[in-house]
Amino acid sequence: MAFFPSSLENLIDKFASLPGVGKKSAQRLAFHMLSLPDQEADAFADAITRAKHSVHFCSVCQNFTEDEICGICASERRDHSVICVVSEPRDVLSIERGREYNGTYHVLHGVLSPMSHIGPDDIKIKELLNRVAEGEVEEVIMATNPDTEGEATALYISRLLKPFNIKVTRLAYGIPVGSNLEFADDATLNRAIEGRTEM
Amino acid sequence: MAFFPSSLENLIDKFASLPGVGKKSAQRLAFHMLSLPDQEADAFADAITRAKHSVHFCSVCQNFTEDEICGICASERRDHSVICVVSEPRDVLSIERGREYNGTYHVLHGVLSPMSHIGPDDIKIKELLNRVAEGEVEEVIMATNPDTEGEATALYISRLLKPFNIKVTRLAYGIPVGSNLEFADDATLNRAIEGRTEM
Repeated sequence: MAFFPSSLENLIDKFASLPGVGKKSAQRLAFHMLSLPDQEADAFADAITRAKHSVHFCSVCQNFTEDEICGICASERRDHSVICVVSEPRDVLSIERGREYNGTYHVLHGVLSPMSHIGPDDIKIKELLNRVAEGEVEEVIMATNPDTEGEATALYISRLLKPFNIKVTRLAYGIPVGSNLEFADDATLNRAIEGRTEM
Repeated sequence: MAFFPSSLENLIDKFASLPGVGKKSAQRLAFHMLSLPDQEADAFADAITRAKHSVHFCSVCQNFTEDEICGICASERRDHSVICVVSEPRDVLSIERGREYNGTYHVLHGVLSPMSHIGPDDIKIKELLNRVAEGEVEEVIMATNPDTEGEATALYISRLLKPFNIKVTRLAYGIPVGSNLEFADDATLNRAIEGRTEM
């Protein structure tokens, strides 16, 4: 005998299938959903369907967009000779938050990861090479995460870009602004010393 | 300029409105949703709508059901002279898991909480009194959580049940089975000593 009605069990299973949501949290979320007014629950379901059907990848940078080309790629005020390569759409958000960078982006949607069977064809590398091949690009900034997989991906792509004879750069490593030397790990400190600049 | 398409921002907001889901997790969940095949995302949306529209409260015990009366209340194999009063549907699940209890339940859908402005009319107390008033009930077991609000709710209801002249009991307090005295808090230990039984 199932203890909850089947449609409720089904909803709990759906929530439990989300990343980082366990069985208990899924129950809590499903109960919460049942406690909402009908129209709010419907709006939630509708938000999923609408986002899923109207959001796709920008044909240029592969970031999420509802149009053929995203706002940044379509903007004439952005410097289209510079491409900043990131692994996820949220990284675009992080860099835009700084209000400093004025070039374009390229979203890989992942990093190379032999352990998870993610190879060069599984992320948007081909699309990046096509953009560079068009000839307008002068610099590619590798901004994948500074972890093993991010580093390996950046290195792999930088080698593929060699033949195009353009500038390929990497984000600087170092102590975070406002941080404390005491809390910096050894690897970061070593990189900060290597990358020291004249005052 | 919004950095994500509006339908994606909307989906992130919906996830962020769930209990215990912050802005970052909401982003992660929304991105995950976009990465699902169309039919899986649709199935998710559908699960919400279906659960919301087909699940309601059992007209007897107020637990979730898709029928007029839930499986436990409809069963002839259960002892309808005993009602176990719990605060949430998940508590029914916990007690059923023990496979020991054979009576019926009553789900309050909350506990009295003056701090959160939850009074007797906001939880299913009236429905419990109506059930008892019908005369078939011989014992009501108070199984609200052993915290301040659960205790107060149990005490409040037990007073309302006085005039019916039936047995009103409370779950036993004590050391959890398989636990260690060392880790038991003072209050639990004291209750365990008070409630000691002959061997």
